[in-house]
Amino acid sequence: MIHSRGFFVVLEGLDKSGKSTQIKLLARRWRRLRASVLVTREPGGTVLGEKLREILLHTREDVAPEAELLLYEASRAQHVVLKILPALRRGCLVLCDRFSLSTFAYQGMGRRMPMPAVRQIDYFATAGLKPDLTIVLDLPAKLFLERMEERRDRMESAVSFLKKVRSAYRRLASVTRKTVIVRADRDPKIIHQQLVGIIEGHPRFKRLK
Amino acid sequence: MIHSRGFFVVLEGLDKSGKSTQIKLLARRWRRLRASVLVTREPGGTVLGEKLREILLHTREDVAPEAELLLYEASRAQHVVLKILPALRRGCLVLCDRFSLSTFAYQGMGRRMPMPAVRQIDYFATAGLKPDLTIVLDLPAKLFLERMEERRDRMESAVSFLKKVRSAYRRLASVTRKTVIVRADRDPKIIHQQLVGIIEGHPRFKRLK
Repeated sequence: MIHSRGFFVVLEGLDKSGKSTQIKLLARRWRRLRASVLVTREPGGTVLGEKLREILLHTREDVAPEAELLLYEASRAQHVVLKILPALRRGCLVLCDRFSLSTFAYQGMGRRMPMPAVRQIDYFATAGLKPDLTIVLDLPAKLFLERMEERRDRMESAVSFLKKVRSAYRRLASVTRKTVIVRADRDPKIIHQQLVGIIEGHPRFKRLK
Repeated sequence: MIHSRGFFVVLEGLDKSGKSTQIKLLARRWRRLRASVLVTREPGGTVLGEKLREILLHTREDVAPEAELLLYEASRAQHVVLKILPALRRGCLVLCDRFSLSTFAYQGMGRRMPMPAVRQIDYFATAGLKPDLTIVLDLPAKLFLERMEERRDRMESAVSFLKKVRSAYRRLASVTRKTVIVRADRDPKIIHQQLVGIIEGHPRFKRLK
């Protein structure tokens, strides 16, 4: 699907990779520049999506991996139709915390779902909409474990799952168009400058103004 | 997917076609016969599914048709993994109010979604599990409109949508294996006797005992 105007940027990466910090810094900068920006997130971004986010993060029942995938995609379908596409059509920069690549990395490769089916369902949910630019914040395993240890609520199995997701992100980034990896083990201000360079250096950003 | 034991029966039809009444009568009968039966419904049937049911029936935001379909399928995936398959493996009769055919009739044909994609997503959600027997309670249009008029909350557009779904059910029933249509415009006790005949006359029912 071609939205023709706007600029669709997605930030990806594991929890603790610094996505939220970077999104805050970028949003603040663009507000100052009076750029028309929509900052949003997945799962979430709509009334339905936020309800699903709540369910995904706090259901006491075990959620079957297939159900989990379908819930993320339901949230995405709603998000695309109600918020992302309208904003892109108005010519906005849409900055989204997670999108399809999260599903491919966590549910697809992390939970070993059949990737062709995962991609088909994602295509259905997004009506084929792809980001113009995806940036993966990649934390080297050592640092990533340190940051996790600050929260003692992690088990062995979670650590090995997250290592798997990290390597899934790296593999996906290397084969997915319009996707770059940024090292997340530096000073947040330096990472911010890098992101500004990458995003504002993109031809679509120049066309926004 | 082959569950090898048990007997998976689905009751389908529009709201007001009398599904709930029939399910109550059948469940009561089988409890008396001490058959091991699981009576369940979609969307719902699990903690997650009931939360999704609540969302599907009471979200104030418009739900995108793609998101709606994915939510029904998420509820179904959870239902299959957590309740239906385990019950079938124990050798139960599972009587379910709605299953895949509802999605094909309402979301697929009713909302004009691409049927191959709808079937693929349903296959993913059910891991290929199909009912051993599906019974569609079919209400002739005239009666169906009368019963609807009792509730004045229906609009023209809803009426034409439901007529479309009714004809979708009839078409699907004629091309789907192991599916029968039962006229729903008779005395509930007569319909009950018909259902007893169809279900208890099925070879899988005899094997349950």
